[in-house]
Amino acid sequence: MAHFMDVHEGFVGVSKDELAKAHDADLAIESEEGVHFEHAWVDPESGKAFCLSTGPDKEAVLRVHERSGHPTAEIYELAVEV
Amino acid sequence: MAHFMDVHEGFVGVSKDELAKAHDADLAIESEEGVHFEHAWVDPESGKAFCLSTGPDKEAVLRVHERSGHPTAEIYELAVEV
Repeated sequence: MAHFMDVHEGFVGVSKDELAKAHDADLAIESEEGVHFEHAWVDPESGKAFCLSTGPDKEAVLRVHERSGHPTAEIYELAVEV
Repeated sequence: MAHFMDVHEGFVGVSKDELAKAHDADLAIESEEGVHFEHAWVDPESGKAFCLSTGPDKEAVLRVHERSGHPTAEIYELAVEV
């Protein structure tokens, strides 16, 4: 299992309830891909969103986001952290 | 106090020791700016780095990074999170 950060655009003006709904949609299906989304942060001013997850590979993480309706192509494997 | 994510480029091939050294350089002076760096993640393949912090404003966070030798201009205020 590896650790990932994926990045989204377009979350301008998102509320906590809306983010929770999007996150819950990921959580509902993540186990089918062997993924777990740990945390999500949004800057509603710029619309930038960051999701921290664990999973088998980048593709599995991106599949969960795509299937739950908020796809992105930008993802990084976090091999080093402090 | 607010929550921030800043993003760096150029950390290609960085080791855990090198990241810890950079992070420690931030921790050594962060209190002078009222900032605390909570976590840092790096993808050594792409060189992308993410730092999660709390502080009074974006400028204070960026000043710490600049003073400790790894400046960036890309930072987001994380007003919404789950």
